[in-house]
Amino acid sequence: MKVYLTGAGLTKFGELWHYSLEDLAMQASKEALSEARVSLEKIEALYVGNMLYGKLANQDQLGALIASNLGLTVPAYRVEGACASGGLAVNLAWEAVSSGRYKNVVVVGAEKMSDDETLAVTSALMGAGGEDERKAGLTFPGLYAMMARAHSEKYGTQRSHLSSVAIKNHFHASLNDKAQFQYEIDEARIVSSIMVCDPLTLYDSSPISDGAAAVVLSSEGSRGDVYISASQVAVDSVSLSSRETLWSVPSAKLAVKKAFEVCGKGPEDVDIAEVHDCFTIAEIMAMEDLGFCKAGEGGEFIQSGKTRLGSKLAVNTSGGLKACGHPVGATGVKQIVEVYCQLRGASGKRQTDNPKVGLTHNVGGTGATAVLHILQK
Amino acid sequence: MKVYLTGAGLTKFGELWHYSLEDLAMQASKEALSEARVSLEKIEALYVGNMLYGKLANQDQLGALIASNLGLTVPAYRVEGACASGGLAVNLAWEAVSSGRYKNVVVVGAEKMSDDETLAVTSALMGAGGEDERKAGLTFPGLYAMMARAHSEKYGTQRSHLSSVAIKNHFHASLNDKAQFQYEIDEARIVSSIMVCDPLTLYDSSPISDGAAAVVLSSEGSRGDVYISASQVAVDSVSLSSRETLWSVPSAKLAVKKAFEVCGKGPEDVDIAEVHDCFTIAEIMAMEDLGFCKAGEGGEFIQSGKTRLGSKLAVNTSGGLKACGHPVGATGVKQIVEVYCQLRGASGKRQTDNPKVGLTHNVGGTGATAVLHILQK
Repeated sequence: MKVYLTGAGLTKFGELWHYSLEDLAMQASKEALSEARVSLEKIEALYVGNMLYGKLANQDQLGALIASNLGLTVPAYRVEGACASGGLAVNLAWEAVSSGRYKNVVVVGAEKMSDDETLAVTSALMGAGGEDERKAGLTFPGLYAMMARAHSEKYGTQRSHLSSVAIKNHFHASLNDKAQFQYEIDEARIVSSIMVCDPLTLYDSSPISDGAAAVVLSSEGSRGDVYISASQVAVDSVSLSSRETLWSVPSAKLAVKKAFEVCGKGPEDVDIAEVHDCFTIAEIMAMEDLGFCKAGEGGEFIQSGKTRLGSKLAVNTSGGLKACGHPVGATGVKQIVEVYCQLRGASGKRQTDNPKVGLTHNVGGTGATAVLHILQK
Repeated sequence: MKVYLTGAGLTKFGELWHYSLEDLAMQASKEALSEARVSLEKIEALYVGNMLYGKLANQDQLGALIASNLGLTVPAYRVEGACASGGLAVNLAWEAVSSGRYKNVVVVGAEKMSDDETLAVTSALMGAGGEDERKAGLTFPGLYAMMARAHSEKYGTQRSHLSSVAIKNHFHASLNDKAQFQYEIDEARIVSSIMVCDPLTLYDSSPISDGAAAVVLSSEGSRGDVYISASQVAVDSVSLSSRETLWSVPSAKLAVKKAFEVCGKGPEDVDIAEVHDCFTIAEIMAMEDLGFCKAGEGGEFIQSGKTRLGSKLAVNTSGGLKACGHPVGATGVKQIVEVYCQLRGASGKRQTDNPKVGLTHNVGGTGATAVLHILQK
C-alpha cells in the first residue's frame, strides 16, 4: 500500500531553554496533525524517535508519555538506534501503513540536549559507540576524525573539501528560519576556529541541539500527494574497529542499494537529499556511498558546487545537521520533513526547482545503523 | 497472515555476574534460532526489548549491536516502553510477520541490572514513572503500595491475599530451573520479612535480575504449531496521579478487550497466563482487569487456589516476575517463551494439563503501557 505524507511539523532547532522535550514533541506533533487534517480519533499508532532522554532526564516510556499527552490510548513505541532513532521510527511507521495495518499514524522525533553540561551530553552520546571505543577514551569527533584521516590518506581529501560542506550547509541554513545557525561562514572562519579533533574543527561539527519534528503517514494522500516509495534499514558493527573500511559506511551502501531497487530509481534520479552530516567528512562519504559520485570524489563533488541550492542535485537544503542543528532523535524525522516540504514547493527562500524525487540518509553512530528513505511526488 | 512461534531461548534468570548483556542476548537468541531450525540468512529483522542498558552501561543502539554480533545486517531496532519493552518488541515483530512483510524474525529481550548499586538501579527504574513522581521522591514500591492501599480500601483486600500471590509464584518457581528463586515460601516468612513500602514487604516485590529471552516468529509453523492469535497494545498516562483509578489498570483492560475481540476468545477460554506481577498487588489487579474474576475479587480468587498449577487456569507457572525474576526488558519475551513451552507440553515438572489457549500481560510502569498477547495451538 502506498504511504503518503499528509502532514509535517517542526520546531525551531537550537538551544531552546524554555521548552521541555514534551513541549517540543507536542508542538511538532500538533502542527503535523493540524496540517494533515486527520482527527485524533483516526490516529492508530505513535512512534517516537529518541536517543538520550532516558539518560539525560531519566524519563523513559516516551511512547506512552507523548501519546497520552496528545490524548491517545493507541499503541505507542519509543524506538532507539542512536542518531538514527528518528529514521527508525519513520521506518517502522512506514511499514505499518505500507502493510495495510494502519491508515494513519504519527511519528515524532525529539531530543533535548541543552539542559545538561557538555560533558554529560558528550558521555551520553558515546552510547552510540562501542564499549571498546568508550574505554579507549574516544569521542564522536575522534571517531569521525579517524574516518576523515583514513579518507584523506586513501583519496587525498583536503581541508578545503571538508570546508566546502560546512560553507554550503551554513549558506542553506541562512535561508531556513528553523535552523540553529542562520548565517554564512567562509573558509577563513573555519580554519581559524577551535580544533576539536584534528582534522575536524568546530565548524566541521554538528552542534548540541534541542528540537522536534513530526510527520503524519497515511494510506490516503492529499497535499500534493508526496509519498514514501522506499524505506530501508541496514546495520553493521557498532565499533569502528570491527569495520572492514574506515573511508566508507557499508550499512549506508547496503540500505541505499535496497532502497533504489524497491522504487526503481537510481542516484541520477534524485533531485534533493538530506544526508547525515554530523561531521563534514560524513557528507563527503555519503555522496560516495549513495552513488552521487565515485568513491574518493566526494570532496571535489561538493566543492565544485554540484550539491548547492540551484544545482540539479541539492543536498541538505535545511542546513543539514551541521547548520540546521542535530537534536539526535529528531534528525531522521526532520530530514523527512525537509524533503516533504521541498517536494510540495513549500520551502520558501530555499525552494529547489520542481523536485520530483528526494532521499534521506540517517546514520546511527559511525554507521552501525543506516536508514534510507526515498520520497516522490 | 498467521504468526507462528518456531523457536525460543531463555537464559537462567538471576544475578549473573559472569555474563554481560551481550552474552545473555546472544545465548538466548542462538538457542531460539537453533530450535527454530531457521538459518541466519533467512532472518529478515531483529527486535530488541531493553529498558536500562543505556542508563546503566551507557550502551545504546542495541539493535545494531546484537544484530551484528549475530552476523546479521538486516533491519534491527531497540524498542523501549519501560518494563513493557519486551512485550512491545514482540508486538512489532508480530505485526511485521502478520502483515506479510517478513517470513522470519528474531525478538530478544535482555536486561543486566546486577552490575550496579541498588540505588542506581532504583533511580534508573523511576524512568518508567512520571517527572512529578520522581520529584516527589516516589519509588516503584511506593507507587504500587499506593495502588495496594487503594485496592484494599475499596475492596477489603488483605495481607493474606497479597501473600497468596507470592506463595503460589514461589511454588511455581521451585519447579523451574531457570528461575531466580527456586524455593517455596510461607506466610510467616513473608510477614516477618523487611517492609519495603507498607503494605508491600520484600516478598511482595519482584527482584533485581539479569537475563535474556528470545523467540523466532515465522509465517510458517512447526514444532507443535503454536501461534500468536492476538497482539495488542494500549497506553495511558505515565503518572499515577493522572489516572482515573488507583485500583485497576485501564490500559490492560483496553488491550485485553481488543485482544479477545481479535481472536474470538474470552477469559474463560484461557488455560495458562503469564501476568505482570512486579508486586503481588499487580497480579491481583491483573486477575480482575483481564476478566478472570470480578473487580475486587482478585485476592480471594488467587487465595482459593484457582490460579495454581493443577487448576483449570494456571497463572505464572514460570514463577512470574516475583520468583522467576524480572530483568525488565526480558520479561515480556520470557512470558511468551513460558506460554509457548506450556502449549508445546515442554514445561517438565510444571507442565499444565494440555493447555490450548495462553495469555501474556506485560505492563510498563504502573500501567502507562500494556501489551497483551494470546497464544494458541
